[in-house]
Amino acid sequence: MEPFFSLLTKHVDKSASLLCVGLDPHPSDLPAPTAKAALDFCLRLVTTTAQYAAAFKPNAAFFEMHGPEGWSALKEVITGIRTESARLGVNIPIILDAKRGDIPSTGYAYAISAFEKLGADAITLSPYLGRDSLEPYLAYPGKGVFLLCKTSNPGAADMQDLTVSAGTNASMPLYEYIAHLAQSWNTADNIGLVVGATQPEALARVRQAAAETWLLVPGVGSQGGDLEIALRSGLRRDGKGMLINVSRSLAHAQDPALAAAELCHQIAEIRQSMM
Amino acid sequence: MEPFFSLLTKHVDKSASLLCVGLDPHPSDLPAPTAKAALDFCLRLVTTTAQYAAAFKPNAAFFEMHGPEGWSALKEVITGIRTESARLGVNIPIILDAKRGDIPSTGYAYAISAFEKLGADAITLSPYLGRDSLEPYLAYPGKGVFLLCKTSNPGAADMQDLTVSAGTNASMPLYEYIAHLAQSWNTADNIGLVVGATQPEALARVRQAAAETWLLVPGVGSQGGDLEIALRSGLRRDGKGMLINVSRSLAHAQDPALAAAELCHQIAEIRQSMM
Repeated sequence: MEPFFSLLTKHVDKSASLLCVGLDPHPSDLPAPTAKAALDFCLRLVTTTAQYAAAFKPNAAFFEMHGPEGWSALKEVITGIRTESARLGVNIPIILDAKRGDIPSTGYAYAISAFEKLGADAITLSPYLGRDSLEPYLAYPGKGVFLLCKTSNPGAADMQDLTVSAGTNASMPLYEYIAHLAQSWNTADNIGLVVGATQPEALARVRQAAAETWLLVPGVGSQGGDLEIALRSGLRRDGKGMLINVSRSLAHAQDPALAAAELCHQIAEIRQSMM
Repeated sequence: MEPFFSLLTKHVDKSASLLCVGLDPHPSDLPAPTAKAALDFCLRLVTTTAQYAAAFKPNAAFFEMHGPEGWSALKEVITGIRTESARLGVNIPIILDAKRGDIPSTGYAYAISAFEKLGADAITLSPYLGRDSLEPYLAYPGKGVFLLCKTSNPGAADMQDLTVSAGTNASMPLYEYIAHLAQSWNTADNIGLVVGATQPEALARVRQAAAETWLLVPGVGSQGGDLEIALRSGLRRDGKGMLINVSRSLAHAQDPALAAAELCHQIAEIRQSMM
């Protein structure tokens, strides 16, 4: 079976897009704080933005908060993405943003949830439990993981910026060490990294540490990250290797299709100017 | 409202127990891989071991893997613990083992899930996103969090044993730094740590770094941790401050009540010998 990042690259080429559409049904954005409202909110975003989407990223928390009905809604959102993909004749990868991370015997159950029950193509994971904690996910052919590396929140600095001694005499921030680890662990083209756009100098360091690795980049727009600076800091030399995740500014747009098209156009222009 | 660790301490005193009964319905331990079988498995453990339990710890993964029905079963398990507690005239704290960790605006949704929808009293969290990622949980009066510090799996070493520079001239393993952070953050008696029993020297270092902090300690029994060494390494001077989590060896026992009673007795004897 084709590795996850090979499948992603195919769709990135076909769609000429690096835009990841985040599906974060915050209750404050819904007419009512219910699973049904979360579902409707997401399906509207899916149908209006699918033709511009390099990937979709549903956020498990905003479904989990509704209990069993929320999990049914999350499954329906994923089914809705598959339906819309089929209608467009494409295969849009689905990244479950769940940030799980547990010992292998427990990770095995989370992997069943993400890949078998929900049918996602990839999942975000915490790196804190180390290499063996990824194995249950990496055992699925064609599936992928994105490891948290440098997150977009202010508290990220508490741990991720700590200076670690790595081997003989090198020292570096912990997030950069994770980037090196991910690059070395990624022998089957199925491990990427999550790096926020709010700190472009960190993006650049990660890109240097992990020259080939795909980066999932939240934080552009409502969290304050600048699109052009982020792309210039993190794109690979081939103009790929980054998914720019946008959630709230699409959801809040009067016309999400137009907003997605404009974002795609901006990204394409910046990529073009860099080649 | 009384802080979480004050409530826990009261029940520890009343039950004279430090035994945390882990509810991990691994599919391989069930007659069928279904949510109903997971529920029955857990309710049997709850009713047979409640009188010996200082706390219960259901593991979200083994419910999540069954989809919406799994989340309904998890809620029923928690309701079952409350019913059994009421029958015994006690208040047994429930720790949701979920190892979540996300930016605050997402953590807020996970906190609703854990504390409002499911009704747990505490949750396990990853520390990787830093102090602000804990705030949505700590905002709930009477609720608590346990931060992953040193986990019981072999891969834990990949990150948790890295040497970090902390401030002027101190350097220490990352897990020990987390222990210092947790101790300093724990101004409202609602932050504990998860430290595996498989590496007692780490337990001892954590206890030294965080003299007052409650430790949730998995890994005794099937994962190879030794009960007596763990207690001698991690107990506070008052003979408290540790929850010894046991899951599979109780679940696999022919008579889980007897097995729980024996574990309690062993723990009490070791505590006694140390006082």
